[in-house]
Amino acid sequence: MNIYIATELSVIEKKIIKINLNKHNVYFSNQISQQKPNKNFLKCEIVFGNIPADWVQQSSKIKWLQLASTGFAEYSDIKKNFLNKKVMVTNLKGFFAAQVAQTVLAGIFCFYRGINLFPLLKKEKKWIGEPLRKKLEILNNKNILFLGKGSINREVAKYLEPFNCKYSFIDSRTKNNIFYNKLKLAEIIICALPGTKNTNKLFNVKVLNYLSKNSILINVGRGNLIDENHLIKKLKNKSIKGAILDVTDNEPLKKNDPLWTCPNLILTQHTGGGYMDETKDKVYFFIDNFKRYFNGKSPLNIINPSRGY
Amino acid sequence: MNIYIATELSVIEKKIIKINLNKHNVYFSNQISQQKPNKNFLKCEIVFGNIPADWVQQSSKIKWLQLASTGFAEYSDIKKNFLNKKVMVTNLKGFFAAQVAQTVLAGIFCFYRGINLFPLLKKEKKWIGEPLRKKLEILNNKNILFLGKGSINREVAKYLEPFNCKYSFIDSRTKNNIFYNKLKLAEIIICALPGTKNTNKLFNVKVLNYLSKNSILINVGRGNLIDENHLIKKLKNKSIKGAILDVTDNEPLKKNDPLWTCPNLILTQHTGGGYMDETKDKVYFFIDNFKRYFNGKSPLNIINPSRGY
Repeated sequence: MNIYIATELSVIEKKIIKINLNKHNVYFSNQISQQKPNKNFLKCEIVFGNIPADWVQQSSKIKWLQLASTGFAEYSDIKKNFLNKKVMVTNLKGFFAAQVAQTVLAGIFCFYRGINLFPLLKKEKKWIGEPLRKKLEILNNKNILFLGKGSINREVAKYLEPFNCKYSFIDSRTKNNIFYNKLKLAEIIICALPGTKNTNKLFNVKVLNYLSKNSILINVGRGNLIDENHLIKKLKNKSIKGAILDVTDNEPLKKNDPLWTCPNLILTQHTGGGYMDETKDKVYFFIDNFKRYFNGKSPLNIINPSRGY
Repeated sequence: MNIYIATELSVIEKKIIKINLNKHNVYFSNQISQQKPNKNFLKCEIVFGNIPADWVQQSSKIKWLQLASTGFAEYSDIKKNFLNKKVMVTNLKGFFAAQVAQTVLAGIFCFYRGINLFPLLKKEKKWIGEPLRKKLEILNNKNILFLGKGSINREVAKYLEPFNCKYSFIDSRTKNNIFYNKLKLAEIIICALPGTKNTNKLFNVKVLNYLSKNSILINVGRGNLIDENHLIKKLKNKSIKGAILDVTDNEPLKKNDPLWTCPNLILTQHTGGGYMDETKDKVYFFIDNFKRYFNGKSPLNIINPSRGY
């Protein structure tokens, strides 16, 4: 079979693929331009990696696209991208759950235990000590609202068990009045919703204004979920306690983006899903899924691109 | 009864004491000098707060000293401080466990998820993003060594349950060869040992050199447990991954202390035990313990000062 690898890999990762798929033709491409499809790509039945969505329509060979991400909003326009092709698409659902959940936990504890301050105080060689103690908090008994019922939030909930927190899960189908009432009470709001038409700017001025003074808003979903200008206002006038954004409207942030200078905000620069062995483990996932495909089994994580999540 | 309050309290906290102990004479003292005992102190049978150790010998009235701390090394010289007085001493054992344990967890996740870097990058308006992902880690399956079997480490262990870590507990009675072997394998070392003669500079050059390249050393015990100069060397040449010090040899750190400029080090400025309601909750603990004492029951947390922990 002809296999196109559209993910940037190290020498070792390439070797892992070569050894495991040594009976097949594997074409590696490190640089994916947004322009016309690569010649090798056009020969391949199987693709691993996030090629530009409009390449799909231009291939007469592609049968299976294994994405290297969980999100796939950019492929959701089936009519335009897939024409009438029957291309199976699989994603990495659940692959990032532990990493992102641990970034969420890191962020929460940073606010409660002051660790967002200590690196800056250290740089200034400034000892505060005792007076800081009274500003710290513990996680126990907090009221937590999970937006999204997927693997990330379920993983976070697992980690929170020892802390006796009160929590509820809602999603984009939850009725507005229930959502608003829960928002008012929440001390930690963890948003792991996908980017769809329904969730675009879900946290608009009205919704952000339901947040309480003690609340921490965390977004590990998609960057377009929040009205960033209004969030900045609320953080500046301390009408919420803090925010942790792994995803933002613009990535990378431009030098003049007002988020950079916004107080009580932790920016994790879309690293939430990352870890040392991330790419290697993605490669192993693809190899295992390929073996299922090759042996006539159904690959794991088949998605319906038109749903958008 | 005459009760002396040697802890700095807010108006509200004083009111809580006055209301609860309204049948007794309560003397408040906000400023404890290291010199001669306060006159009111000399009238009192009961003391709440950490008075200078040598005051005890000068009082003919004192029967019970409720400390506002867990540690009590400064009272350990019974012969000098207590002469032959039968003074009952109680401490706040366990009171700080959840707070300190959560500072420990915050520190660990900061290293693994990069949050010790993000506040500094934000200040510089510097986006790194993608390349940072490969430097991040997750807590799962790490090898953890707890030094000390007290309430802090037991609390941390409770929090670590969802992460499938391998861990062992040792204390200052563990044989050296067992200690050294465990140190070599440990990826996270959490030191919550008390300050005694046995533990002084426990982490000397030899012991620090057993730590592996991937290890994070955390000290929430006493500042004198670690040879700081050698720790700095190891952090600078990256022969260990990182360190989190809640306690240091000198507190507050002087401007020229080399810890300030040491890389891969989080300094939490002895705030580990702190939280918003810390003093109020200490007051409530004292009131409850006083009621036990007054009703002829044994107060909680009676300690033997000569043991030093």
